[in-house]
Amino acid sequence: VDPANRAWMQGKTYRGQLLPGDLIPGFAIGEVLESTVSGLNRGDIVEGALGWQDYAVVTSADVIVRDRALPLEHLAGVLGITGLSAYFGMLEVARIRPADTVVVSAAGGAVGSIAAQVAKISGCRVVGVAGGAEKCQWLTDELGLDAAVDYKAGNVFHDLKAVCLAGIDAYFDNTGGDILAAALALMNTHGRIACCGNVSEYDLDQARAGPRGVPGLLVVKRVRMEGFLVSDYFHLRSSAEKVLREWLATGQLKAPVHLVEGFDKTPRALIDLLAGVNRGKVMVRI
Amino acid sequence: VDPANRAWMQGKTYRGQLLPGDLIPGFAIGEVLESTVSGLNRGDIVEGALGWQDYAVVTSADVIVRDRALPLEHLAGVLGITGLSAYFGMLEVARIRPADTVVVSAAGGAVGSIAAQVAKISGCRVVGVAGGAEKCQWLTDELGLDAAVDYKAGNVFHDLKAVCLAGIDAYFDNTGGDILAAALALMNTHGRIACCGNVSEYDLDQARAGPRGVPGLLVVKRVRMEGFLVSDYFHLRSSAEKVLREWLATGQLKAPVHLVEGFDKTPRALIDLLAGVNRGKVMVRI
Repeated sequence: VDPANRAWMQGKTYRGQLLPGDLIPGFAIGEVLESTVSGLNRGDIVEGALGWQDYAVVTSADVIVRDRALPLEHLAGVLGITGLSAYFGMLEVARIRPADTVVVSAAGGAVGSIAAQVAKISGCRVVGVAGGAEKCQWLTDELGLDAAVDYKAGNVFHDLKAVCLAGIDAYFDNTGGDILAAALALMNTHGRIACCGNVSEYDLDQARAGPRGVPGLLVVKRVRMEGFLVSDYFHLRSSAEKVLREWLATGQLKAPVHLVEGFDKTPRALIDLLAGVNRGKVMVRI
Repeated sequence: VDPANRAWMQGKTYRGQLLPGDLIPGFAIGEVLESTVSGLNRGDIVEGALGWQDYAVVTSADVIVRDRALPLEHLAGVLGITGLSAYFGMLEVARIRPADTVVVSAAGGAVGSIAAQVAKISGCRVVGVAGGAEKCQWLTDELGLDAAVDYKAGNVFHDLKAVCLAGIDAYFDNTGGDILAAALALMNTHGRIACCGNVSEYDLDQARAGPRGVPGLLVVKRVRMEGFLVSDYFHLRSSAEKVLREWLATGQLKAPVHLVEGFDKTPRALIDLLAGVNRGKVMVRI
């Protein structure tokens, strides 16, 4: 379950608007029950946009076969679209360098939790932004972030400034809105903003005005702000997966999961996700 | 005279805020009257941030010696910071490709008029945005742009859409504000926005909210939006100048100038510039 499921209901994005009655599209890991094509065999574990349903009929072009030996939670999370979004967003879009101060919003989420750890492993100083004191504590204690800012607790600009005394070199944006505006005002010269999501707006009827400082601060500080989708980087997937698996194996990278049991819990899982109850990837086992 | 002169009065930018009583900083072409250092000789023509004054005392690090044989108007304009901003912004930041649809705001200005022509010469379809029917006519008739949109005449989004039926691949932004918001909504996938200036805000007391669609549209369309200053590309200056001089020599590139005579006219020249009376670079001869 991903915040994007909600975004698709709002209007046309990189796909047509999702309308009442449509199958809700979504990334899933499935098992092949029956196949009439070569390359797909009964029992294969596959990944694809199978949608929110018990069974999917697909063509071989719709899915890729995955390694059965890997945990399903990894296939659906850290080694799936969210983990890869984090990896490519940090390394290919934000282009972090060791000793950078890196800020990640929705740092407790599926993408954010991996993105923040990718930056830590890369030698950066990492600040997470999340909602709630407990989640922030978890970010520093469990994921090893250098600091965390609770955006619900106070003034996110002042709180972020207090822990980014040398400014921000790279900002991984999952939220847009006030957190983006705060980060923008703290960016260093030649800073980079990787725009991955805009979850602060997915529950709104209409897009809000953008953050103050666009384009003024972008010019003054020569900031690059770049949106991306994970699919833009799929040509680099195998090398990315190799690195992520290595980090998982050595324990450097944790892959937190919020597992929900039962298909009927899926709508609730999305609502909870948007309310921020999860730590890590929300997934439903059916 | 540049819009940046006004921006510096608003607050801290890449330089400290300009305060009443300060020398107004500004780019100028000067002649060496007296020198006590080697490499600078009486009669040399130099370029530098000499400021709004009749005489400047500088160190050799503050200026570079220019070619006496070149017209002063070219040195102060198309071969100076504004022409180079246009050149680097188009080629290094917007990274235009032949057949791109390219939009330029403030297309009648010092930077915009060169930027638009650089894109034309590079094989792009170029649309200029400017204020007033006459200026728009001049853009198509004199500078050879494919279309021009008068942002004062109607709804800039609809008018821009009508002449960019295949969307916008690259947008060279000199204005920010409503024109940026309109362009953003028309960007194609993997479009690029080069943020050069923000002249729509230089006369405001406080920065406005940013354009709607940041960051939402950046993600959905994977748009890159990047601020730059010409000085970031000075290491490429000599090759850029060679190309610009060639284009000037062949007549492919025109270097429009709005020349004002007399030092006392300088404040008025800036006011007129911000009101958009000029076509091309505003310069004062003293």
